[in-house]
Amino acid sequence: MAPRALDYESLNENVKKVQYAVRGELYLRASELQKEGKKIIFTNVGNPHALGQKPLSFPRQVVALCQAPFLLDDPNVGLLFPADAIAKAKHYLALTAGGLGAYSDSRGMPGVRKEVADFIERRDGYPSDPELIFLTDGASKGVMQILNTIIRGESDGVLVPVPQYPLYSAAISLFGGSLVPYYLEETENWGLDVNNLRQSVAQARYKGITVKAMVIINPGNPTGQCLSESNLREILRFCYQENLALLGDEVYQQNIYQDERPFISARKVMMGMGPPISKEVQLVSFHTVSKGYWGECGQRGGYFEMTNIPPKTVDEIYKVASVSLSPNVPAQIFMGLMVNPLKPGDISYEQFIRESKGVLESLRRRARMMTDGFNSCKNVICNFTEGAMYSFPQIQLPPKAIEAAKRAGKVPDVFYCLKLLEATGISTVPGSGFGQKDGVFHLRTTILPAEEEMPEIMDSFKKFNNEFMEQYDDRSGYSRM
Amino acid sequence: MAPRALDYESLNENVKKVQYAVRGELYLRASELQKEGKKIIFTNVGNPHALGQKPLSFPRQVVALCQAPFLLDDPNVGLLFPADAIAKAKHYLALTAGGLGAYSDSRGMPGVRKEVADFIERRDGYPSDPELIFLTDGASKGVMQILNTIIRGESDGVLVPVPQYPLYSAAISLFGGSLVPYYLEETENWGLDVNNLRQSVAQARYKGITVKAMVIINPGNPTGQCLSESNLREILRFCYQENLALLGDEVYQQNIYQDERPFISARKVMMGMGPPISKEVQLVSFHTVSKGYWGECGQRGGYFEMTNIPPKTVDEIYKVASVSLSPNVPAQIFMGLMVNPLKPGDISYEQFIRESKGVLESLRRRARMMTDGFNSCKNVICNFTEGAMYSFPQIQLPPKAIEAAKRAGKVPDVFYCLKLLEATGISTVPGSGFGQKDGVFHLRTTILPAEEEMPEIMDSFKKFNNEFMEQYDDRSGYSRM
Repeated sequence: MAPRALDYESLNENVKKVQYAVRGELYLRASELQKEGKKIIFTNVGNPHALGQKPLSFPRQVVALCQAPFLLDDPNVGLLFPADAIAKAKHYLALTAGGLGAYSDSRGMPGVRKEVADFIERRDGYPSDPELIFLTDGASKGVMQILNTIIRGESDGVLVPVPQYPLYSAAISLFGGSLVPYYLEETENWGLDVNNLRQSVAQARYKGITVKAMVIINPGNPTGQCLSESNLREILRFCYQENLALLGDEVYQQNIYQDERPFISARKVMMGMGPPISKEVQLVSFHTVSKGYWGECGQRGGYFEMTNIPPKTVDEIYKVASVSLSPNVPAQIFMGLMVNPLKPGDISYEQFIRESKGVLESLRRRARMMTDGFNSCKNVICNFTEGAMYSFPQIQLPPKAIEAAKRAGKVPDVFYCLKLLEATGISTVPGSGFGQKDGVFHLRTTILPAEEEMPEIMDSFKKFNNEFMEQYDDRSGYSRM
Repeated sequence: MAPRALDYESLNENVKKVQYAVRGELYLRASELQKEGKKIIFTNVGNPHALGQKPLSFPRQVVALCQAPFLLDDPNVGLLFPADAIAKAKHYLALTAGGLGAYSDSRGMPGVRKEVADFIERRDGYPSDPELIFLTDGASKGVMQILNTIIRGESDGVLVPVPQYPLYSAAISLFGGSLVPYYLEETENWGLDVNNLRQSVAQARYKGITVKAMVIINPGNPTGQCLSESNLREILRFCYQENLALLGDEVYQQNIYQDERPFISARKVMMGMGPPISKEVQLVSFHTVSKGYWGECGQRGGYFEMTNIPPKTVDEIYKVASVSLSPNVPAQIFMGLMVNPLKPGDISYEQFIRESKGVLESLRRRARMMTDGFNSCKNVICNFTEGAMYSFPQIQLPPKAIEAAKRAGKVPDVFYCLKLLEATGISTVPGSGFGQKDGVFHLRTTILPAEEEMPEIMDSFKKFNNEFMEQYDDRSGYSRM
């Protein structure tokens, strides 16, 4: 009998080509071990609440009231909810088309898009147009929609940093395009060298690829670096010269753990450069409620903002967004609350600041603990996590370990991460899932385990790593494999 | 200068080809008029809460508590929430990976998928496997993922009913496949004739198209018919003979307005047919929290269930779902609550039944009012809405109206619907957005306007229609154009 439509051999080849290691072999094995009763520390994905981070109270109060608007008529509502949460809930309900149960416009609620535009204007000092802001079910969905709009086929290329968050490689595979890698320099603190970019583009063109867009992730995922203003200028100049759209993944803009390089948006830099760049370079910037000190991953809220995109293209993007009707409405309200936070004098202000500062300051300490912890391990070197929520240490695997991995039929860093998982319950993602230079190995872990558990986790990692390194040490006369 | 990546001429042609009339020209014009202050009755999309339907209280109480779990520790919680809502909130919070702010597994929470499987088993009398159920951000997202998995290119075809809900045509365009139409027979109460199906498949094969799957929408959208068990058997036999996967859009399964043909799922019929059909036909069934008496469109919750899909394919679908991390978690809880409703004896049971019956009985009355209203209009004939939430009257446009439309550069039914909108504020979707036979015209409206407003809306429609028909009557000596 002929294969059926949903038999593996019949499937869309682009679907089969997709790779997404963040929930790949390591995650699946960790899930199995968890089912068997083993304690697993899931650091494979930036999912703060799963590791115990508490949600900020105020936005949760507001959205709870929006879900149960009948409470607003209850004389006891003030016993459970502060007056400013009640007022905010009324504000957002008035912006909906019929409460949280009604589809919004496919771009999201106009009122929330206006609040996002105001936020961008305050942040960057340049006005932003709500009509060019689309709310999405998380930033990933927005990235996928834009890539789907750009990519026509395999001769269309997109410049992606290596290492990269594999959303980009996965989406480019799914849409049948070509990933054009540019390497970040580990020894330069994961910096971006425009000469490398030029080389990457030249090589791609030599292969007949039209390079259409460039992705930057700032702060970096998995690499944690923050791009400087001068670096962003170089990138924008490069995009202008090479006629590339710039996709700015800025979902970690609130996650900054040093003071030398604060976050600066690609849009702000671009606007500051003036014409022709500010008028010509096509920029799409992405943001989310999943990261920052919010960490509201499960709500699935995000937005993208388009600059220098012609109205006919915006119409096409709107049309395709309409096919799935609307982004979820509760997360749109989280987005409104995130971009429009409480002000001094608001009843809930003190609590909000205490909670959000608590999260950010602890993340800053954890970034330091983790980097220092990795750097104290044998054959491990790690750049400091300047921003985002990951640590991406290089693991210098001895030749004997590489041979053992080969015998086990595993990529060397997958081999290492699997052993780490089995020994300690720490679920990481091998560097090969993000891309790395040949013969160099990494892993990615989030910095999200609870601060009080961090010393124990780093001790457990160190113990495993040092035993592993000893076991495969070339100078040791035996192998305990 | 060369066109830039996001200039219209550079875009992915499949994106440009997408058509989605439900939020097309009519909707955009209605939005403009609304901005100008005109009262618009949005019947273009099945969005019950936008037209005043109240949410069911109990699920909203549960999800509000899940959003604000700190309320569970508040001694006053019992003043605002009934005990069974508190218990249910605790139940669902215990199933999450860290509350509503944590990503769930990319397939959705295992506990909710188990509840869905139990529901399917109770409904159909055959066991269902939670591992083959994926939760999604609304049913549309699931449909799109499955079509993306199936379609390899333009020589892959999918059988779609005409008229159809344009999600299918839009998604097939976006993924670069070929839509293979099969016509529903208006004079046979929108019934499906398997001989037509055979012809459609033969014609497509003649053109070199591999027909891979067939879509059924039951109850029908926009046509409102309910498929009989014998019709479903014929369809399944046909899918088996022709080696087609069956995609069963069953999102309106709770929306039934007659007693002769209750809803019966494709899966139940298939299982009842026994091998080889029950073991061989690949079936994916879709459901949602957006319809039924819930109407929780804005929450974006749905699921799909796979039958006879090999594990390797399930793995691929899981992998691609993982790229966007997880469906939104609040809507997963709505899904759990929908498939696992309150039981007699529960504190909130009486209220829940009162609310849900109120919605369904009113919809049943509105279906009748609307059909009768349309059938009382000149040159309008309309099948009864047996299920779903739409009325799809045929509008018999006089030749003079068709000429006037041509002069205005409009498709005739678009011309009619625009005039209707301008005259009455009723925002419908022209039949051409769903597909119809050549020279036959329709419009789609939901049956969702508030029951008390229905007589006025139907009067206003009738007045407009009869004037329109008089204006363009061939026998009238003048035209008021």
